[in-house]
Amino acid sequence: MATIQEVAKHAGVGVATVSRVLNGSGYVKESTKEKIMQSIKELDYTPNEMAKNLYHNRTGIVAVIVPEVSHPFFAEFVNAVEIALCSHGYRMMLCNTWQERNYERQYLEMLKKRQVDGIIFGAHTLDISDYQSSNRPIVALDRNLGPDIPCVSVDHKEGGRIAAELLIEAGCKNLVQVSGDGNMQSPSNDRHSMFQRVCTEKGILSHGVATSWNRLDFKHFEELSELVMTEFPDADGFFATDAIMLCLMRAAAKRGKMCGRDYKAVAYDGTYLSTLTEPSLTTIVQPINQLAEECVRLIVCQIAGRKTEDVHIKVSVRKGASTEPFAERERS
Amino acid sequence: MATIQEVAKHAGVGVATVSRVLNGSGYVKESTKEKIMQSIKELDYTPNEMAKNLYHNRTGIVAVIVPEVSHPFFAEFVNAVEIALCSHGYRMMLCNTWQERNYERQYLEMLKKRQVDGIIFGAHTLDISDYQSSNRPIVALDRNLGPDIPCVSVDHKEGGRIAAELLIEAGCKNLVQVSGDGNMQSPSNDRHSMFQRVCTEKGILSHGVATSWNRLDFKHFEELSELVMTEFPDADGFFATDAIMLCLMRAAAKRGKMCGRDYKAVAYDGTYLSTLTEPSLTTIVQPINQLAEECVRLIVCQIAGRKTEDVHIKVSVRKGASTEPFAERERS
Repeated sequence: MATIQEVAKHAGVGVATVSRVLNGSGYVKESTKEKIMQSIKELDYTPNEMAKNLYHNRTGIVAVIVPEVSHPFFAEFVNAVEIALCSHGYRMMLCNTWQERNYERQYLEMLKKRQVDGIIFGAHTLDISDYQSSNRPIVALDRNLGPDIPCVSVDHKEGGRIAAELLIEAGCKNLVQVSGDGNMQSPSNDRHSMFQRVCTEKGILSHGVATSWNRLDFKHFEELSELVMTEFPDADGFFATDAIMLCLMRAAAKRGKMCGRDYKAVAYDGTYLSTLTEPSLTTIVQPINQLAEECVRLIVCQIAGRKTEDVHIKVSVRKGASTEPFAERERS
Repeated sequence: MATIQEVAKHAGVGVATVSRVLNGSGYVKESTKEKIMQSIKELDYTPNEMAKNLYHNRTGIVAVIVPEVSHPFFAEFVNAVEIALCSHGYRMMLCNTWQERNYERQYLEMLKKRQVDGIIFGAHTLDISDYQSSNRPIVALDRNLGPDIPCVSVDHKEGGRIAAELLIEAGCKNLVQVSGDGNMQSPSNDRHSMFQRVCTEKGILSHGVATSWNRLDFKHFEELSELVMTEFPDADGFFATDAIMLCLMRAAAKRGKMCGRDYKAVAYDGTYLSTLTEPSLTTIVQPINQLAEECVRLIVCQIAGRKTEDVHIKVSVRKGASTEPFAERERS
């Protein structure tokens, strides 16, 4: 591969002149410019993009950090973020914080060292002060990372309220809701507290079960589902994410229990998983594309040096279309 | 943020000397080195990693290109690749070639311009010559990109053979197999031709249905499943990937047909989807972690300038554990 030095020598000019032409900066005589372009062509010189980015002090890369990309919600989110970033001319660097691995600090370091232009955090394991002190473009999906860091989430309160009302209207008296680890500071905690509040107001029993910290794998969901079925054999209604709900339904089926007949279910997220049952599950849908687009809009805005208007963007949830109010996964 | 110039001025040395200390290259007197380190600390200077990578002519980034990361197989593959790349000190840049979008050429350009150190291609839409001419580190997952580009896949012939034998042994006489677009040059075509060959040898009817080019979304799978059920109402056995199989099962359930009782099913891939039915589906498992680790091993090897030993690495498939030979998704 030809170097910039070889191009300069071939064109009979200095390296600085070639650099000015490549970066479109400073004055270069038209005839000299033509000579340089000719040399670039003849020597098949490819300008080093790293050097160009260094010159402009940007990388064109946004990092996206999620707990686990194989989880359907994050898979669909990452898919949508990559498409939105591309449309703004950015590339996506992807990181899983999977289980014990904690790479968030490394990525914050990369942001500080300008190896990436911004980070979208869909995982949150550090102290809020760590994120705050970076003072560089950050957007959080469903995480409270401090007062100056924009957060994008759905209106979880509304989601929790609708779910509780649907189950209670369907006649449930003994509910179980599965939530994430409550120690994490996330707007999604609102959905569980609102669910609980509606149950308490209506005098309906509601048990809470939490997943372990940063565990979003199906092995964990299966173990948890077995536990729920053993501990709450009389539960007649469940509220959990699509992925966990499918595991709960499987654990129930093993015990001869059928969704619709023996219990009701309202799933949260509305990923493709919720469409795989026949008929479809009753679902509270998080509009994943809209969440992704808002995250990208806010990160691009910050990279461009503009102030972001809202600190917390709330996207509305909607009730997922299902052919019947509650899925009967198995037909008798 | 302090610049290297400010550090040099503060320490009373030249920029080149600071650069030598930062890169650990060339001789610098110990006392000068200490003075520079002190200035770096006092000014809170963060060395620009882009400049450092430029110096070493590497980015520390490997691009991974898949058709769609929200597809369960690619989601699990990308998850595993990211973990393996991290363990080798590399970051992952992720690209979807989703449907009409064709960004493979752009990424090949990035590879040429040294914005990434290597590419793992899990998608393939360009001419083989485009990949060949890059002459830079490339590994292909399940794609034939030419004689000099290492390919990693499972032993698809074995997979197709086992699937056909399982269905025929179970008494099926009228089979349907769903394959990818046959125009794509992929080792996975072997699985379909082997399936067909076993059927022909045993005198069993077998119909082939292909997905559309680069379509891996559930909407397409659902439409295709409806088509299969309408066109082949008497089919008594199906062979398709997990994701498509779940859609086929749903389309069958709509018509009152039950897996195990009315038809047999063998799924290919063995993603978490195949574990969501009760009992589990009979599955031919592609060991996704092993595929990911082989891809990463081969790309890291090439980046280090070493010759890769095998052009086509074949990983063995295995029959997935299921409690019964064929899933009965719905209990009567």
